[in-house]
Amino acid sequence: MVDRHDETVPLTNSAKAPRTARGERTRRKILDAARSEFGTRGFADTGITEITRTAKVALGTFYTYFDSKEEVFRALVQDMSEQVRLAVAPVLSDGRGTLEAEERALAAFLSFVGQHQQVYRIIDEAEFVDPAGFRAHYENTAARIAERLAEGAAAGVMQSPRDPLDAEVRAWAIMGMNVFLGLRFGVWGEEDSAAVAAAGNRLIRDGLARS
Amino acid sequence: MVDRHDETVPLTNSAKAPRTARGERTRRKILDAARSEFGTRGFADTGITEITRTAKVALGTFYTYFDSKEEVFRALVQDMSEQVRLAVAPVLSDGRGTLEAEERALAAFLSFVGQHQQVYRIIDEAEFVDPAGFRAHYENTAARIAERLAEGAAAGVMQSPRDPLDAEVRAWAIMGMNVFLGLRFGVWGEEDSAAVAAAGNRLIRDGLARS
Repeated sequence: MVDRHDETVPLTNSAKAPRTARGERTRRKILDAARSEFGTRGFADTGITEITRTAKVALGTFYTYFDSKEEVFRALVQDMSEQVRLAVAPVLSDGRGTLEAEERALAAFLSFVGQHQQVYRIIDEAEFVDPAGFRAHYENTAARIAERLAEGAAAGVMQSPRDPLDAEVRAWAIMGMNVFLGLRFGVWGEEDSAAVAAAGNRLIRDGLARS
Repeated sequence: MVDRHDETVPLTNSAKAPRTARGERTRRKILDAARSEFGTRGFADTGITEITRTAKVALGTFYTYFDSKEEVFRALVQDMSEQVRLAVAPVLSDGRGTLEAEERALAAFLSFVGQHQQVYRIIDEAEFVDPAGFRAHYENTAARIAERLAEGAAAGVMQSPRDPLDAEVRAWAIMGMNVFLGLRFGVWGEEDSAAVAAAGNRLIRDGLARS
């Protein structure tokens, strides 16, 4: 399993990538405004002028960093995908490949979603506006989970998969579980993240069979 | 847990509900055409005239059954939700509340998705076009899973949940698993449904912990 999160992901338009810290801050302001606008109104009902107004930057400044509304949306999807990864990464630094770490990762994800509910609307709308970015987000996320499960199996603390398909199914199943628990308990509900994560973790740890 | 799939779901606009078998067939032709058009072009790029052309019905006939493009979309979401339920229902008639039945249900769902890939595009777009229908689809699906798990626990073949939150987390986790396995292996890939379902079922049956 390739450790995809260590690959350097190029910005969507490298010719326009900021070259200075100040430029990076301006690009960040635009992305944050895009998150707020796209996350509230959706892609079709958001114009570049709404983004620049919220970001408090001039229209010309926008075009210094992005060529179009589509391009800032694609950059935002990549940014949200990275934000999700970063929200979970710290709790994985200890005990990667253990079921306890997976529980902490799920709890961190649920907290992140509760605080950034727009993440669903943006990534879900990417299915229509930026299908390649949508698919990359889930493929990269599943690859990271698969990698952790492989570490857990190698360390002897998780069941080894029977074959590559088994390994891939596990990763996609756990990702789907996390995404839907985030939707139900992070966006639509306000249940305690730790309690939800503990319940989710019991399912993938012990299964449902009566022994 | 309420057995929601036994409730009679009213058509979206009961004043326009067909009163004859012929009317029901015409409404069905319109819904099938809507599925093909919305599923290919998406909501924004589909007009009522494309739907009526594909359905081979007059524009006036369309308005006999639906008031607007939004309304036919809402009816389609409800219809797709029902199609998913019906695709899975036959394999659940035997052994409801067992892990074997859940495996068969997942395999049936994966086969359905492989044959009707538009179902994802339509239900996912409902998040933006028909948020209430989107949420109802997942709440109803989760309620059906929760009901089956409750039967399994009552029959002593599945672990009992610790509390109502645990029961609800299990249902949403399993639904999320099924949805993402359908996306990965039904829409984006063509792996054997039975093999994928078996692998997914091992995860929820036995868990990942080394005993």
